[in-house]
Amino acid sequence: MRLGKVRGTVVSTCKEPSLTGVKFLLIQFVSENGDLLPDYEVAADVVGAGPGEWVLVTRGSAARQHSGYGERPVDAAIVAIVDTVSLDSGSLYDKREDFN
Amino acid sequence: MRLGKVRGTVVSTCKEPSLTGVKFLLIQFVSENGDLLPDYEVAADVVGAGPGEWVLVTRGSAARQHSGYGERPVDAAIVAIVDTVSLDSGSLYDKREDFN
Amino acid sequence: MRLGKVRGTVVSTCKEPSLTGVKFLLIQFVSENGDLLPDYEVAADVVGAGPGEWVLVTRGSAARQHSGYGERPVDAAIVAIVDTVSLDSGSLYDKREDFN
Amino acid sequence: MRLGKVRGTVVSTCKEPSLTGVKFLLIQFVSENGDLLPDYEVAADVVGAGPGEWVLVTRGSAARQHSGYGERPVDAAIVAIVDTVSLDSGSLYDKREDFN
Amino acid sequence: MRLGKVRGTVVSTCKEPSLTGVKFLLIQFVSENGDLLPDYEVAADVVGAGPGEWVLVTRGSAARQHSGYGERPVDAAIVAIVDTVSLDSGSLYDKREDFN
Repeated sequence: MRLGKVRGTVVSTCKEPSLTGVKFLLIQFVSENGDLLPDYEVAADVVGAGPGEWVLVTRGSAARQHSGYGERPVDAAIVAIVDTVSLDSGSLYDKREDFN
Repeated sequence: MRLGKVRGTVVSTCKEPSLTGVKFLLIQFVSENGDLLPDYEVAADVVGAGPGEWVLVTRGSAARQHSGYGERPVDAAIVAIVDTVSLDSGSLYDKREDFN
Repeated sequence: MRLGKVRGTVVSTCKEPSLTGVKFLLIQFVSENGDLLPDYEVAADVVGAGPGEWVLVTRGSAARQHSGYGERPVDAAIVAIVDTVSLDSGSLYDKREDFN
Repeated sequence: MRLGKVRGTVVSTCKEPSLTGVKFLLIQFVSENGDLLPDYEVAADVVGAGPGEWVLVTRGSAARQHSGYGERPVDAAIVAIVDTVSLDSGSLYDKREDFN
Repeated sequence: MRLGKVRGTVVSTCKEPSLTGVKFLLIQFVSENGDLLPDYEVAADVVGAGPGEWVLVTRGSAARQHSGYGERPVDAAIVAIVDTVSLDSGSLYDKREDFN
């Protein structure tokens, strides 16, 4: 899984039928130093993530393991909202500080 | 999924038999700032995308989740035509403006 | 799928038993401008591609969708010989011109 | 599989239900010279790896082959704690030296 | 599949149970010019490759197609020892010359 930050929303009316009702968020990936990377993924949100939150993005067939997603053409999903990232060198991210 | 722009068409007569009838579009990927990237994918079109439109491309086994594609050797598919991409910093793309 | 050009052949006598009879071609990838990239794939040829031809390479589990390849340890396959690639900016490739 | 070093921990309370009880470690990848790379993966730990240890990370559907992980949306897992890495040019890593 | 050169061995005693008996080799990838790339993979050896040999590495779910590997968390495997690589511009590699 990769760490990313919720940056925005992608809306589509004309899409593969099984994607109806799937919420697509644009997630910008974060480096191991906590910086935003010039790399992103549009991921299906299955946990209700909000703008600015750090999340875990799973890719590949793993994105279809969520209940009801087995036959949806999805290759990326947000599977967790991150509370904290702790490195040996100290705290990289703490949601309570970020949203205060 | 990645955001891309429909740039062209790939035509082949000599191909794996199960690919007969599949339309292949050349999709150039778009950065999180809306710029064209030097990276592309030839993807099966299952939504009827047109030249210049922004689309969502799914890759890997997800590309074979579309009805009738289960046994086709396809590793990328266009699964949505994008209406809008909204970032925290404002609107990145709006199809109505782009095509006016 | 990615666009590539047939550059050569890889021969092996000591290999996983199910790979017997599989022809391996070295495919160098091509950019969206038609230039050769410093990136390649050794792919199983299931369409009879020849030297110098442009082909479509499919990767991942898609490479095992060809009849008889379901249990072969192959992660890349040539699934089409390209006739033409047309971009909004004009023709990128035409096999008839390339081979005249 | 890739070689990596255990750098930290990712904690999440709001997550996909099947991820309950899964321990997520942040693994920074190591080059073929033993240097830390600017690239990482958040991986499920199924072997009990500790801070600073070198591990093998498997990615993609392989990460769900561990018993009980078949339906969890996990795309990376730590599947081994490395004892030694020996190259033709000599020893690259020896856990006993590293932890003395 | 990618071309690589056997550079070394990775040993682990504490690992996912199904990996017992699997031999892990460190394979450094080779460019389309035959140069060593700063990129590698730790792959399960199913063909008995030796130090310095050029091999074909398959990745992803393909690595689990070898008999007995169906449920092992392996995402890369050595599936062939390369005899020759012939390019349109001449011979890139010949094992008989390399080992004389």
